[in-house]
Amino acid sequence: MHASTAVAADPLPSWRDRASRQAIVAFVEKVTARGSGEYVEEAERIAVFDNDGTLWSEAPMPVQMDFVLHELKRRAPQEPELASDPMVQAALAGDFDALMAGQSHAGLLRVLQLTHTGMTTDDFRRRVRAWAAQYRHPRFGAGLAAVTYTPMRELLDYLRNNGFTTYIVSGGGADFMRAFAQELYGVPPEQVIGSTTDTEFVLADGVAALRKTSERMFIDDKLAKPVGIHERIGRRPVMAVGNSDGDQAMLEYTTLGNPHPSLGVLVHHTDARREYAYDASPPVSGRLANALAVAPSRGWIVVDMAADWSNVLHPH
Amino acid sequence: MHASTAVAADPLPSWRDRASRQAIVAFVEKVTARGSGEYVEEAERIAVFDNDGTLWSEAPMPVQMDFVLHELKRRAPQEPELASDPMVQAALAGDFDALMAGQSHAGLLRVLQLTHTGMTTDDFRRRVRAWAAQYRHPRFGAGLAAVTYTPMRELLDYLRNNGFTTYIVSGGGADFMRAFAQELYGVPPEQVIGSTTDTEFVLADGVAALRKTSERMFIDDKLAKPVGIHERIGRRPVMAVGNSDGDQAMLEYTTLGNPHPSLGVLVHHTDARREYAYDASPPVSGRLANALAVAPSRGWIVVDMAADWSNVLHPH
Repeated sequence: MHASTAVAADPLPSWRDRASRQAIVAFVEKVTARGSGEYVEEAERIAVFDNDGTLWSEAPMPVQMDFVLHELKRRAPQEPELASDPMVQAALAGDFDALMAGQSHAGLLRVLQLTHTGMTTDDFRRRVRAWAAQYRHPRFGAGLAAVTYTPMRELLDYLRNNGFTTYIVSGGGADFMRAFAQELYGVPPEQVIGSTTDTEFVLADGVAALRKTSERMFIDDKLAKPVGIHERIGRRPVMAVGNSDGDQAMLEYTTLGNPHPSLGVLVHHTDARREYAYDASPPVSGRLANALAVAPSRGWIVVDMAADWSNVLHPH
Repeated sequence: MHASTAVAADPLPSWRDRASRQAIVAFVEKVTARGSGEYVEEAERIAVFDNDGTLWSEAPMPVQMDFVLHELKRRAPQEPELASDPMVQAALAGDFDALMAGQSHAGLLRVLQLTHTGMTTDDFRRRVRAWAAQYRHPRFGAGLAAVTYTPMRELLDYLRNNGFTTYIVSGGGADFMRAFAQELYGVPPEQVIGSTTDTEFVLADGVAALRKTSERMFIDDKLAKPVGIHERIGRRPVMAVGNSDGDQAMLEYTTLGNPHPSLGVLVHHTDARREYAYDASPPVSGRLANALAVAPSRGWIVVDMAADWSNVLHPH
């Protein structure tokens, strides 16, 4: 009876009692202990999380790409112009090399534009939710929850229960993630920071709406992550969690020159059996090389997925 | 004793018992009454407020312009290049016509660039706070609080006490307002939406910082207000409060086509004795003409400052 109560009370049951867990718990206990000298008031307890590869799996391809393909397949039969676009044809044929070609990945941007702009924000949300309802990971099965990491969902809850505000800061589309971030992660729309383009205000037949355009693109990745954080939060986070070189600047902004105590965490994908194993050569995106190399000198925690997590994917 | 208790319990003591107050209270009571059919859950109780002319006075000139002049005066003696700029000379001579000339107000943008970019966000915040500490309104006296409207501060508190989240959505600079919005309005940095430019991530001597640049300017006014609201909040507000045509699109986005009950409020400056009286011909900015004309058909509340408010400026 006592033992099971103790287990139930563990806020991080999927984290083995190893260095990563110990460092996270020590940090949270330190910044929440009044009079500890390292106490951080609640309003400043900002924790930022990457999404792809950090909160959910980004293999064998980023989840958002599944939405792109779903939309292209759904629309191509009724939209000849869309169906005849060479990049749509490349996407539907699974030719990701064609989409990713060139420095600016013009093919990828083209199919993103075709599937993410031109409709109102309300319509877009409905499309994402319709897609999400039928999503199935090729290996892990049905539902978006099936690709999320249980230890990370526990960590989000643990931080919020300790007065932290948890933000997603991802290269993924903000409007895309907002359609399910509350449900999956307990993160409301206003705490989702991601890639954006401008919307356009339209007022017709007594209804005001915002139409998604391709203008003023903001890609919330690499050096732009701290930029997005400042623009949207206006405070320096005290904790940052990522898994790739795209998160390095965000971790640096959080941990270098912060007047508050801070913690940087990198998730290292070491578990081919339960999820995937990669770092410098990821399946599609999520390269981890430079950030891993500087982690020791920066004092960042590196989570060894295989060793540190007793559960990986969320039960569904 | 009983009478004074009743007065102390009034959440809006500076609002006279007239139509404006009654409409606001009726709206708040309706959306917070479970089972009312018009109940709005807390997470969706988003209220957005313009700042200049809505939360504080924008006459005889916008407060942020005082910061610009203060910085130019402070720096000109040490910075010959800055001092020799024709637009700096126009500003220091009080020639606002020169600054506002042309469709794009190039002179104004020039002095804003000189005073709002080139430094880190931390440095900028220190400069704003140093200026704020010595600020004095030419008519109302010392301190930023002296130009804020007591009824609006009461309204912000009243809404928050009823589960609303209150955002500032202003054409003013986001970083500028964030330096004092918590203190003046109880609005934390992450709930301040304003005009922005990009920052640039810099890492030097083991310290990460963000340097303010002139790139990718976003002017959070007029049709861009709903755009900023969606980008930053990702939800449609249920209440919007403004005072000028620059707020019209924000009020339309809030009240036209909203699946929730909604309320639009315009402050009409009718009180030359206690503050200022203007609408279509404002001192510098804050023109109210078209929004006032459409208010009745939109069902928006128009606050008559002279008649509706028993107090105007905050005691200091």
